[in-house]
Amino acid sequence: MTGFAPQDEAYADRVRASFARQAMMATIGASLTRVAPGEVDVEVAVSPSIGQQHGFVHAGAVATAADSAAGYAALTLMPPGAGVLTAEFKINLMAPAEGERLIACGRVVKAGRSLTIAQSEVHAERNGARTLVALLTATLVVVQGRAGVSD
Amino acid sequence: MTGFAPQDEAYADRVRASFARQAMMATIGASLTRVAPGEVDVEVAVSPSIGQQHGFVHAGAVATAADSAAGYAALTLMPPGAGVLTAEFKINLMAPAEGERLIACGRVVKAGRSLTIAQSEVHAERNGARTLVALLTATLVVVQGRAGVSD
Amino acid sequence: MTGFAPQDEAYADRVRASFARQAMMATIGASLTRVAPGEVDVEVAVSPSIGQQHGFVHAGAVATAADSAAGYAALTLMPPGAGVLTAEFKINLMAPAEGERLIACGRVVKAGRSLTIAQSEVHAERNGARTLVALLTATLVVVQGRAGVSD
Amino acid sequence: MTGFAPQDEAYADRVRASFARQAMMATIGASLTRVAPGEVDVEVAVSPSIGQQHGFVHAGAVATAADSAAGYAALTLMPPGAGVLTAEFKINLMAPAEGERLIACGRVVKAGRSLTIAQSEVHAERNGARTLVALLTATLVVVQGRAGVSD
Repeated sequence: MTGFAPQDEAYADRVRASFARQAMMATIGASLTRVAPGEVDVEVAVSPSIGQQHGFVHAGAVATAADSAAGYAALTLMPPGAGVLTAEFKINLMAPAEGERLIACGRVVKAGRSLTIAQSEVHAERNGARTLVALLTATLVVVQGRAGVSD
Repeated sequence: MTGFAPQDEAYADRVRASFARQAMMATIGASLTRVAPGEVDVEVAVSPSIGQQHGFVHAGAVATAADSAAGYAALTLMPPGAGVLTAEFKINLMAPAEGERLIACGRVVKAGRSLTIAQSEVHAERNGARTLVALLTATLVVVQGRAGVSD
Repeated sequence: MTGFAPQDEAYADRVRASFARQAMMATIGASLTRVAPGEVDVEVAVSPSIGQQHGFVHAGAVATAADSAAGYAALTLMPPGAGVLTAEFKINLMAPAEGERLIACGRVVKAGRSLTIAQSEVHAERNGARTLVALLTATLVVVQGRAGVSD
Repeated sequence: MTGFAPQDEAYADRVRASFARQAMMATIGASLTRVAPGEVDVEVAVSPSIGQQHGFVHAGAVATAADSAAGYAALTLMPPGAGVLTAEFKINLMAPAEGERLIACGRVVKAGRSLTIAQSEVHAERNGARTLVALLTATLVVVQGRAGVSD
């Protein structure tokens, strides 16, 4: 239980449908593994195609998964018809991201009428052990009444 | 001319070789188009595979290109043998990224002995017109003497 | 010339009047030294009262001046009656802030209808020489129709 | 219990002595109210002298308290003789800061050999009710062997 009450009963279907339209998620091997009010988990199956020059996962791929987890956590609490866009985010990379899997857990910190703040923690799983590799904070815009930007 | 003097004469070859090892760059359609002391440009050929749910380029893909441009701008000024890692970055998404091409221009703001600060501006090109779509600020770590982390 | 056209002819008086109401500016020894469309400079007369434990200016005091410069740069471009609030900012401290004076130069990067992005560079002046000590990026909210929040 | 083990038995005295040297803390009415391994609370007695133009506490004052809480949380885990400096921070202001008191709770997210990541949550207390007003994430540098920078 997160203490957040969705304004849209169909919030989970809505997040799943929107996530499925994000081609970038398939491109980096990401899937949606949990949707709850104010909380969304995104997992990445690590492959060489998302690597950087030393063999770790690229900071950009880590950020991509974390941004989607934060954005969709925000979307779970938005009114029907609204769309979500990232205004800005900041990410700290705390340890090299390596292993079989990344798990990005997004959760809403403050849901506002026009702006929502969310954070994502990203853990890397290697041989069953998890390491915190990144922490992202994002400001999401609640877009209303703009053609083509609805989720 | 940028006012920065590289410590490594082979800085441009070094950046190109390291960039070529970043599989994530090929995955998002990014290529290295300019290398100068303290400045690196990365371009992305926009394709549906890096899209988000409304048809724009995913914020994560924009951030990935901007992070690489900033990181490699920092690497141009690092001593031979050093490796570059992103400690953190912050990105503001100012307009939807759409068009045929993204151009991320990274430039060093302050080159330090252990930490370098760099910024990237990202423009989207659509029918020949360019729009500023994002601004990233990154802190890069100058890694020395760590096995496997050299560029 | 900055290329920005103010929507309010009285933008400079408006910024000066609002700045004068910010008691925190007097508390840290800050004054407004320049107002132009999209650009505002704030200077701080350095004194021991804003120091941190090693004798440098506290990062918080540097951030305070930089935030006001960015916020008022944004306000120069807002419509009459609107108020400005900081949604978030990020600051990199690049060198210890020491000397007689800090000069924070704020400039608008993107002026939007509801959100404006601005940056501030902060230089420290010591015996006539200037050093770049900090770089801040802020997201400012254009507040309209909210009682008590007008500038 | 926070799960962090200090390397310096005298960590609490060390934090208190360093905090007492930060003149900026007295200037904004801040005091140190709790020191534990990896966790430090800083409280601010709100007064008109730290206000912004609408009567709320200035974002810079909120950031100053949050930065000190994060920095001293980091210092609790540093080896004897090391000094702490802020490399960068990012703060989201989620609600106007108003009331009698601000409470900034800093806690370490990841303690590294050369860089530490810490977060601070800031609550405003008004008539006994607390509101989350800000969230800060900071990167702190563990300074060793630099004259004048020891805590």
